[in-house]
Amino acid sequence: MERKLKEVDAMAANHMDNGFYGQDIISVGQFDRTKLDYILNVADEMKVVVERFGGVNLLQGKILANLFYEPSTRTSSSFMAAMLRLGGQVIPINNVQYSSVTKGESLPDTVRTLESYADIIVIRHPEVGSAATAARYAGKPVINAGDGVGEHPTQALLDLYTIVEGLGEVGGLKVAMVGDLKFGRTVHSLTKLLVNYPVEFIFVSPDILRMPKDVLDVVDASGHLYEESEDVHDMIGDVDVLYVTRVQKERFTDLAEYDQVKDRYVVDPELMARAKERMIVMHPLPRVNEISYAIDNDPRAAYFRQMRNGMYIRMALLAAVLGKA
Amino acid sequence: MERKLKEVDAMAANHMDNGFYGQDIISVGQFDRTKLDYILNVADEMKVVVERFGGVNLLQGKILANLFYEPSTRTSSSFMAAMLRLGGQVIPINNVQYSSVTKGESLPDTVRTLESYADIIVIRHPEVGSAATAARYAGKPVINAGDGVGEHPTQALLDLYTIVEGLGEVGGLKVAMVGDLKFGRTVHSLTKLLVNYPVEFIFVSPDILRMPKDVLDVVDASGHLYEESEDVHDMIGDVDVLYVTRVQKERFTDLAEYDQVKDRYVVDPELMARAKERMIVMHPLPRVNEISYAIDNDPRAAYFRQMRNGMYIRMALLAAVLGKA
Amino acid sequence: MERKLKEVDAMAANHMDNGFYGQDIISVGQFDRTKLDYILNVADEMKVVVERFGGVNLLQGKILANLFYEPSTRTSSSFMAAMLRLGGQVIPINNVQYSSVTKGESLPDTVRTLESYADIIVIRHPEVGSAATAARYAGKPVINAGDGVGEHPTQALLDLYTIVEGLGEVGGLKVAMVGDLKFGRTVHSLTKLLVNYPVEFIFVSPDILRMPKDVLDVVDASGHLYEESEDVHDMIGDVDVLYVTRVQKERFTDLAEYDQVKDRYVVDPELMARAKERMIVMHPLPRVNEISYAIDNDPRAAYFRQMRNGMYIRMALLAAVLGKA
Repeated sequence: MERKLKEVDAMAANHMDNGFYGQDIISVGQFDRTKLDYILNVADEMKVVVERFGGVNLLQGKILANLFYEPSTRTSSSFMAAMLRLGGQVIPINNVQYSSVTKGESLPDTVRTLESYADIIVIRHPEVGSAATAARYAGKPVINAGDGVGEHPTQALLDLYTIVEGLGEVGGLKVAMVGDLKFGRTVHSLTKLLVNYPVEFIFVSPDILRMPKDVLDVVDASGHLYEESEDVHDMIGDVDVLYVTRVQKERFTDLAEYDQVKDRYVVDPELMARAKERMIVMHPLPRVNEISYAIDNDPRAAYFRQMRNGMYIRMALLAAVLGKA
Repeated sequence: MERKLKEVDAMAANHMDNGFYGQDIISVGQFDRTKLDYILNVADEMKVVVERFGGVNLLQGKILANLFYEPSTRTSSSFMAAMLRLGGQVIPINNVQYSSVTKGESLPDTVRTLESYADIIVIRHPEVGSAATAARYAGKPVINAGDGVGEHPTQALLDLYTIVEGLGEVGGLKVAMVGDLKFGRTVHSLTKLLVNYPVEFIFVSPDILRMPKDVLDVVDASGHLYEESEDVHDMIGDVDVLYVTRVQKERFTDLAEYDQVKDRYVVDPELMARAKERMIVMHPLPRVNEISYAIDNDPRAAYFRQMRNGMYIRMALLAAVLGKA
Repeated sequence: MERKLKEVDAMAANHMDNGFYGQDIISVGQFDRTKLDYILNVADEMKVVVERFGGVNLLQGKILANLFYEPSTRTSSSFMAAMLRLGGQVIPINNVQYSSVTKGESLPDTVRTLESYADIIVIRHPEVGSAATAARYAGKPVINAGDGVGEHPTQALLDLYTIVEGLGEVGGLKVAMVGDLKFGRTVHSLTKLLVNYPVEFIFVSPDILRMPKDVLDVVDASGHLYEESEDVHDMIGDVDVLYVTRVQKERFTDLAEYDQVKDRYVVDPELMARAKERMIVMHPLPRVNEISYAIDNDPRAAYFRQMRNGMYIRMALLAAVLGKA
């Protein structure tokens, strides 16, 4: 993605150039180690600020257009909370399908309208590439909050931040991703971020839901090692990060096959008894039954911390892009 | 409901303990005379503050998650206005049915996600007991904004406040509740609050919509007297409070029976001509035709004052629970 | 519309009487030259304030109820942004059809409820006259954001402001309105505003979509001249303002007729090559294909500036009505 300086806050001329100011956030591919370190550090500061004071007025007078073409309570609420805790304001735009879009308006026109009102646009859209399209037409910064089976970079960043928060550093960790690795947008994006660090990957899935070749190619090209496995029980004692995703019935044409594999990927107290004492269990949520409620109070269960960390990461990104971090 | 201190504003360590700080508001059963007096007093202060200054910045930096599983413009707008007039911010979450809930997320997971972002959660849900469930899982305070045919404690409090505001005090009043007393959540909750005061009850309804035994038992147990009647015209001259609810056609299997009774419960100028000069007519709204528009400008019509009082009561509760009242 | 002073901010007793304070904004018919000049000037100040500082805290502590009975992302977001940039807050009420309205609540009751919480109400409603009804019942100011095929006064004002901004002044201009002039609410309202200025009108449409007689009567009565035409190519070289609206297929019973005329009203680079160098192309948006994307970067394309100007005009109106302009 080319680096263009968008028309952001003219008052912030003397900001420090952190590489984010005036930029769009569309893909995990934009992040190298320097940028990751920067954002993780700012997220850490945001955490301190929220815990001590509830928030900080960095973005007073700024407006975020929160444009959701498909519902996602979790992600839209997280961006909203992030903006509000920075002293900014939010225009929530949900159910766009019922609105001018049904009258046939194009995404570029919608985006150009909203940037007339707002200082930054967050977009969630079911089609791959839609966030990049929005960014191309917008003069104001655009943040991708998920474009179909494409990317969801802020999710990958919050996942990374949760690993650092939980285990101190990323280098040297054994990271197992478990469940539906074929269609799971989050595991693809997180893998692409993690190749910036010296980690080992273990990909655990039913055969028909293996990690796609293009993601494995990224791992290979970066010189990282990975194993593949079909059973989470084999490797549970070795892993530092267990990243769980749901194995959905709908993915299987042969339901007998589904019934055979489904329980192999459930995380329950029995499985956790065999896990390291210092490790974390992650999940992008929502979960159904792939993680038992019985482990929610296990200190290794990190999935609710992921939610809170999502707010810190988004605060960091909003502040950085608007030149106030 | 057990008294647990939730993780609220760490800065408010030296708040006055009013018995609300860090608590959930789930049921009218939580309120004794001391607590009622406290909240009615704070609501009175909120009224003065709003009338003079529009609001007061007690909750600056605080965020309310306004979680509505079923639509209710009136109640959601009232909580929103209350939070905004206290200087706080709101994340509105409507149409939850279209969102992650359809992907099967449980209420506890939704609540634990939202408390990652917000400082307090207001919940409206069609199922009895859902607010209590939410409160059990949440570390942050939860306020019940109506759980099906269960409770709607803030409605009962605003009703009580409207009585005090309109008639000076509650003791000694004759309170008539009229209409559908069987299914009317509001009359059940208000009755349970009013037994804290020396009042007389008159329950006026069609035979098939009489006040349920469990509510009458509460009245009996508290040593209060009540009458039951089928016609509002019989007792109109005696009552200080006429609390009207709608008699819905759908409740009747025999429509002839409905046609026979429906007009007996309509409040119109003719009925009001026979009412005391100093009394109030209340209704939780929305109304259809059970109160004639012709009496809207009668100073005894208190139903729009109820709306405004709802905002003051909710301001009082939000401030008290967050330790700022 | 009678001039009634509504119960607005009691603190603003010593405001300057600009003729807007405490008033409803329902129809373009309320605006004479003095009022137009005033609002255009305030909008200009708002533009400067937003460009320099992002906004100004004129309406801190004020709450706008943004009541939309039909979806309109553009208009609702614009009012929201306007209120937020003035330091106020917004209660967005969308999807009202799913709410208490379905339980049968009347518009007057909804409005009286919302004014219990808010300081000003913006209403969009599919029925002609609904905004006037709302204003009649509300003690607080009401702004019409479109009532069906009735009026949309803030759109007409932003159109007028865009003309002044683009061409310096309105007097002496040749204004062509093109497309569906029969059903186009925006061209009706704009025409009624423009008769306050010495302009010439050209109405260009298919025969079945000509400007209605009642609008032409207003033009006549005001002593203005107008031409009618069926082809935009005939007059493009002469016009200062080309106001384009969509010719919808659904308006035609004879589709052969539609196919014959549809391309005659498309604005593309070829047409623009024959237009004056100093003129502007306007459109209320959303567009489908009546304006080619190829002219979006033409400096004469003013339709995205219209969006931004809509925010300035609404800021001006909100501030003026609440006595803070």
